[in-house]
Amino acid sequence: MPIDRRQFFQTSLGTLAASAIPGAASAGKNTFQDGELRVGILGSGYRGQSHIGELLAQPRVRVTAIADIDPRMIERTNSMFDERNLERPALYDRGPEDYQRLLAEAPVDAVIIATPWRWHTVMAVAAMQAGKYTGLEVGGAFSLDECWELVRTHEATGTHLFFLENVCYRRDVMAVLNMVRQGLFGELLHLEGGYQHDLRAVKFNDGEAAYGNGVEFGEKAFHEARWRTRHSQFRNGDLYPTHGLGPVANMIGINRGNRFVGLTSMATKSRGLHKYIVDHGGADHPNAEVEFKLGDVVTSMLSTVNGQVVVLHHDTNLPRPYSLGFRVQGTEGLWMDVNKSLHLEGKSPEHQWEDAASYLERYDHPYWKKDGDLAAGGGHGGMDYFLIRDFVRVARAGTRPPLDVYDGATWLAVTPLSEQSIAAGGSLQQFPDFTRGRWMDRVDDFATEES
Amino acid sequence: MPIDRRQFFQTSLGTLAASAIPGAASAGKNTFQDGELRVGILGSGYRGQSHIGELLAQPRVRVTAIADIDPRMIERTNSMFDERNLERPALYDRGPEDYQRLLAEAPVDAVIIATPWRWHTVMAVAAMQAGKYTGLEVGGAFSLDECWELVRTHEATGTHLFFLENVCYRRDVMAVLNMVRQGLFGELLHLEGGYQHDLRAVKFNDGEAAYGNGVEFGEKAFHEARWRTRHSQFRNGDLYPTHGLGPVANMIGINRGNRFVGLTSMATKSRGLHKYIVDHGGADHPNAEVEFKLGDVVTSMLSTVNGQVVVLHHDTNLPRPYSLGFRVQGTEGLWMDVNKSLHLEGKSPEHQWEDAASYLERYDHPYWKKDGDLAAGGGHGGMDYFLIRDFVRVARAGTRPPLDVYDGATWLAVTPLSEQSIAAGGSLQQFPDFTRGRWMDRVDDFATEES
Repeated sequence: MPIDRRQFFQTSLGTLAASAIPGAASAGKNTFQDGELRVGILGSGYRGQSHIGELLAQPRVRVTAIADIDPRMIERTNSMFDERNLERPALYDRGPEDYQRLLAEAPVDAVIIATPWRWHTVMAVAAMQAGKYTGLEVGGAFSLDECWELVRTHEATGTHLFFLENVCYRRDVMAVLNMVRQGLFGELLHLEGGYQHDLRAVKFNDGEAAYGNGVEFGEKAFHEARWRTRHSQFRNGDLYPTHGLGPVANMIGINRGNRFVGLTSMATKSRGLHKYIVDHGGADHPNAEVEFKLGDVVTSMLSTVNGQVVVLHHDTNLPRPYSLGFRVQGTEGLWMDVNKSLHLEGKSPEHQWEDAASYLERYDHPYWKKDGDLAAGGGHGGMDYFLIRDFVRVARAGTRPPLDVYDGATWLAVTPLSEQSIAAGGSLQQFPDFTRGRWMDRVDDFATEES
Repeated sequence: MPIDRRQFFQTSLGTLAASAIPGAASAGKNTFQDGELRVGILGSGYRGQSHIGELLAQPRVRVTAIADIDPRMIERTNSMFDERNLERPALYDRGPEDYQRLLAEAPVDAVIIATPWRWHTVMAVAAMQAGKYTGLEVGGAFSLDECWELVRTHEATGTHLFFLENVCYRRDVMAVLNMVRQGLFGELLHLEGGYQHDLRAVKFNDGEAAYGNGVEFGEKAFHEARWRTRHSQFRNGDLYPTHGLGPVANMIGINRGNRFVGLTSMATKSRGLHKYIVDHGGADHPNAEVEFKLGDVVTSMLSTVNGQVVVLHHDTNLPRPYSLGFRVQGTEGLWMDVNKSLHLEGKSPEHQWEDAASYLERYDHPYWKKDGDLAAGGGHGGMDYFLIRDFVRVARAGTRPPLDVYDGATWLAVTPLSEQSIAAGGSLQQFPDFTRGRWMDRVDDFATEES
């Protein structure tokens, strides 16, 4: 549950004057009043609501406008403000294009986009063009053109895009990043990550509850099953690459002295979703006729110009425990999260695994060491707290985000590249350089001492 | 330690008449006397000696000839016979080609080849041409031509080749195979395996002890470091694919209603071996000048005509715990060996791992359930006992081996295919069909009830 904002102020930031807490929405566009950051939310579904909770827990942040088309979600969103005795945000609900009116007229300095995937790029482009500091939720691109469009719009407008990859802020991931930076794994060579999450009860429901009932998707379904499942029906690739890729890309400095050069992907046949429909809805259910194109397990390999290999897993249609499958391996040892273990030469017993817990505690990232208690109540085990705190920090300052449009374009590009590779039987794809050579000079400023 | 043969007879096979125990080598070629199987060993190094131990533990088997060129290894081998009060085998030690004389004149019905990799194919071809039932140790091929040569020789001569992949007989692997056959994982989709073994102390020594001292390889080294390390110096690919591949290939019926169709591989840069030399021999040691081509971690993906994907790992130059990295995943769940866990839908707690131990015990393969006690003293945790028992069984009967020349050619082909793929940046390689279509009709007879 998000921390109540006023309580947060009182307990954690006593030095802030109570008068800094805003009482009402201020008018005006793209201007900071009293150092406030005014945020608009494009897509106030469950994910958008989670972001609103995190934003309202930050000092001097107001959520002043939302755009959505689902009355149930709008009602839930409004109740978040009512419960906190906060003014409701301005509402833009006149159809799916009404976000453009929000961008044109609402008093917002920044926006967060948490809509279905097909809206991500079009909304992010429009938001940057409107001069709004743009936070973009994760997903996977439909085409390389789309990735380039994000980059070109940023470069043309000068407006920043923060790619909101929250797993980069996961406690163990940040501790391992800390260990990488301190050289504990030596020179990094092989990394793995992925999205291995049994989403069957997310991809299907009964149109009422979001999770775990029924075998409907599309029009007859509710929440993610309304739109997400379509991608499993028609696309075959790594549809959701960034949770696994972002954290390891950071560790090897992708777009910061390093870049991806090649990718190959292979997919298994598709069995899990059809089986789920038959098992839970019967062989006579109309959806038992649907042919799903998404292979149940998709594996990709990425090579880097600095000689590393990254293996990515995508596995969402089968019964399995949740695991992002991280592996971080260098000349001095390796960490794996599936067995919560590591081996470090000269530290661990020879040829043996060692429980990673004591290292993760010892190398806890400064973010978590200092503010882990504040984060603990936040979304996804606390990582969303630091994600939104970083977003607010750079959006307020108008500075380059630590995970920026080049990172977003690079990570999102895995989806169309993997689709192309799979369609050609696993053929090698050249990885675009979205920085156009600037990766050689860019520096790492993700969660550094300075940030 | 191998079980003493006579003791074995007395304790375990009391029904065999004592007179069946041979006292002296019998003459003649390719003939069975008293149902004996006479075996020649090409390469009586440590691996060959291990096979001799297993052979001598089997009833009605004699080791009648060895070919080797290393006096130290010959002495060790002879002592194995002396200790057991057995006649020493005939010795063929007049240079590396003297195995041809063994094949021409020694009283052997079958041979086992356990030489350095460069001798595998030439010896196997010669052995099949000489009509000897041929057991071939594992490794990786140098070329696809070499794989075809094995197949063609078998087809021309009618002589069988047993590909001695011992991990197919590992207790947990056989239990999981048993579970696969009983349908516990549903329809198989994604499998992983590999060779993840820190071999640095195998690839280098001081020329005296085999393991863990010094940084010499090649001429100045002893045992595997004399020859195996050269492959790390000059080759970049999955040099040792079969321990990881064989077991999972069996589970999805490769060459038995299924076949591999494509492969891609990527390799990290090479750092581990150079670092080991510098760390243990100093930066001034002459070997610190050597450039090793083998990437420290090599990853391969293989697709099958039936829609599975197999991921293979090769990781031998870095500090790490030993792990063959198995993962067996289907529509009903998955097993992984790195965390010794599985998840089976409807059996395991939802979305949670379950300790695999109770399943591995319950589905213990009949081989192990019946004779696990006999195997327990054998090589590599007992798997070698069953490997050699199967070899003796089919060699004595002259029947098709359960792991045959087509399996060997297929698994060995991963090495040249991965080298070609890596050299081309990860490009897709077409996988040859060594059975020329017969995979559609071949049946699985590996460790079945009938065997």
